[in-house]
Amino acid sequence: MINVAIMGHGVVGSGVAEILIGHADRIASKTKTPVNVKYILDLRDFPGLSYSDKFIKDFNTILNDGDVKVVVEVMGGINPAYDFAKKCICADKSVVTSNKELVAAKGAELIKLAEEHNVNFLFEASVGGGIPVLRPIAQCLAANEITAVTGILNGTTNYILNKMIVDNMDFSSALALAQEKGFAERNPAADIEGHDACRKVCILAALSFGKHVYPEQVSTEGITDITLDDVESADNFGCVIKLIGSARKLSNGRITASVRPTLVSRDCILSGVNGVFNAIMVHGDQTGDVMFYGKGAGKEATASAVVADVIDCVKHIGARKYLSWEDGSADFVDNTADLATKLYVRAVSSDFEGLVKQIKSIFPGISCVKNKFRGEIAFITDEEPESVLRSKISKIQNADSVKVLHTLF
Amino acid sequence: MINVAIMGHGVVGSGVAEILIGHADRIASKTKTPVNVKYILDLRDFPGLSYSDKFIKDFNTILNDGDVKVVVEVMGGINPAYDFAKKCICADKSVVTSNKELVAAKGAELIKLAEEHNVNFLFEASVGGGIPVLRPIAQCLAANEITAVTGILNGTTNYILNKMIVDNMDFSSALALAQEKGFAERNPAADIEGHDACRKVCILAALSFGKHVYPEQVSTEGITDITLDDVESADNFGCVIKLIGSARKLSNGRITASVRPTLVSRDCILSGVNGVFNAIMVHGDQTGDVMFYGKGAGKEATASAVVADVIDCVKHIGARKYLSWEDGSADFVDNTADLATKLYVRAVSSDFEGLVKQIKSIFPGISCVKNKFRGEIAFITDEEPESVLRSKISKIQNADSVKVLHTLF
Repeated sequence: MINVAIMGHGVVGSGVAEILIGHADRIASKTKTPVNVKYILDLRDFPGLSYSDKFIKDFNTILNDGDVKVVVEVMGGINPAYDFAKKCICADKSVVTSNKELVAAKGAELIKLAEEHNVNFLFEASVGGGIPVLRPIAQCLAANEITAVTGILNGTTNYILNKMIVDNMDFSSALALAQEKGFAERNPAADIEGHDACRKVCILAALSFGKHVYPEQVSTEGITDITLDDVESADNFGCVIKLIGSARKLSNGRITASVRPTLVSRDCILSGVNGVFNAIMVHGDQTGDVMFYGKGAGKEATASAVVADVIDCVKHIGARKYLSWEDGSADFVDNTADLATKLYVRAVSSDFEGLVKQIKSIFPGISCVKNKFRGEIAFITDEEPESVLRSKISKIQNADSVKVLHTLF
Repeated sequence: MINVAIMGHGVVGSGVAEILIGHADRIASKTKTPVNVKYILDLRDFPGLSYSDKFIKDFNTILNDGDVKVVVEVMGGINPAYDFAKKCICADKSVVTSNKELVAAKGAELIKLAEEHNVNFLFEASVGGGIPVLRPIAQCLAANEITAVTGILNGTTNYILNKMIVDNMDFSSALALAQEKGFAERNPAADIEGHDACRKVCILAALSFGKHVYPEQVSTEGITDITLDDVESADNFGCVIKLIGSARKLSNGRITASVRPTLVSRDCILSGVNGVFNAIMVHGDQTGDVMFYGKGAGKEATASAVVADVIDCVKHIGARKYLSWEDGSADFVDNTADLATKLYVRAVSSDFEGLVKQIKSIFPGISCVKNKFRGEIAFITDEEPESVLRSKISKIQNADSVKVLHTLF
């Protein structure tokens, strides 16, 4: 029998407890040994639960119990999660977490510590919720050199954008609906400003390219500036707007990393990822594009990914799973790299004829969608280095406003 | 250093050799020990290759060389692949294969043999080519009870159907184009009649539901009867026609398993899987729908999946990967189960008015698409047990022909 402790009994933690306790037989059939939840750490009381006798309030009870071999950290946040995880690993316990903030900030350090102590530090649920993605990248694509990771990494923003696209709902109404349905927090900043997706890009980039990437190294932009006009205009070009997180390998060995609203062609499978679903596309030099799709959040989905990691830890007591990367460095991420791309441009002017004339002279031969009524013209550029495109766009002086978005074709 | 032998130097085998030899450094960095290709078994000569000194013609050289720890079987077919794989396992060598025919026919037996000899028998490439799917099902979804597996499992037929849908090409022209492009064999029967997809359903069902499923237990229908009229008619209902392989768990513990052309709603992510791409959707009780997408065939993609298995074998010499199922049984698959479903019906008659009247009386309130010019009416039924629907459809006597297809909504 292997003893496990769960730190945190919130949404994910209670889900983990329910699966480990409620489906103990199923779990034991996979691990070939019973898995016993010995402690659940939470400052709150849960008197009504069938397993209420397992609750404790002192972390040291877990730390000092040599019988506890695997600890699940599902408290969220950096503190005290980081301190607790570090102490558990140093006490030769394997740690499983769903905490993307923790892994994005401290992943390399905790991985190295786990290596030193010959225990496992696993975090499959931290990126895709219930979507298997980290293990497939590390194991199944092991024969590949990964050149790019691109994904829809946040269900809240995808739900909001989807409501704007399909139901013509404006941003604030869609956000309010997402909050009402429990898909968005009361304070939605982490989602709508792209920070949640940013942390997942960090973890995916680190695993794919071998070095830690810190959140502040990712060029991050949310969806708060996306309007129904953008959505409608994108549709004219056969595109939908998605919040895309991506990291790409550059020819000099460095990488770019970004989160930003992006026009995605309806021909691309990512355009069909709707509602709260997430998807991660990985490009390997041998295998081409591979995509993983599923629910990126939610109690059961996330808890089941955590439990899968617990099963793996139990099966590998005393052995190491290779899921690792090196420390990061300031120059590893280079977002100034001048990559060839196509940009989407939408400009508005009260002098509509003047605007159209100017754009036709700067971008000759480009096909535009014009809307004289709104004084608006929109187009997608040919593929050129981004600096060249930005310089051309800066020459559009007849416009009252110019909006530029990246594209994914 | 670990010595490996490759049996077969066809499309996949040469790809495996090229990765293992050409990217030896990358492989060694994953395995932490060099991987050396000691022998390549093929009856043909390949004098021009840089590694032509590795070729042998006698299988016993591999079998009797105790230094060879991992054998890659990429010959295809059941014989002699089955005999060779069995002998290698009995000589305590791990075996990796991409051979779906072999795994679908003999998987349970070879898995059991590998367990007895404490070696690994891995076959990730046998189902999805380069798409990671077997390992994610076995490991990442381990906390789930899987209730259904549904997928587009054959790139050739998906390419043909896609050409019919997008380019309005008829079946034979699309097949000829697929052959010209190398996506279809000169004898395309295994693909277009559904046998290839059937073997993959066997493997997916066995891994998901724990018991071997034999090809003859899968109700299999190909795409040779699909016409442009079907494609166009499906479009009227917001659907595309895909060859769908699926296996579902029944409430009595048995399963259904089928391969058949199916109308897939454009709202379903599977509808966006185009060209030679494949996708496998897995439904877990905790995680909901999860989908894996990528190239289901092709030299590099398939070879990279084989090499990932080789890496896993090398990392687990003397240890077992759990990827297994039990022997099958005659009553495990029950395709007579009367599941609730929606069927698509298209009927043609020279007495068009009579046909419409009769259908309206058998299926009152159903919304139809009528084409008087072709004397044709098409509709999708409400959801009812299939036997009830079949019995109603058999009452359509005014039709010259009636075509029925399954649907996926």
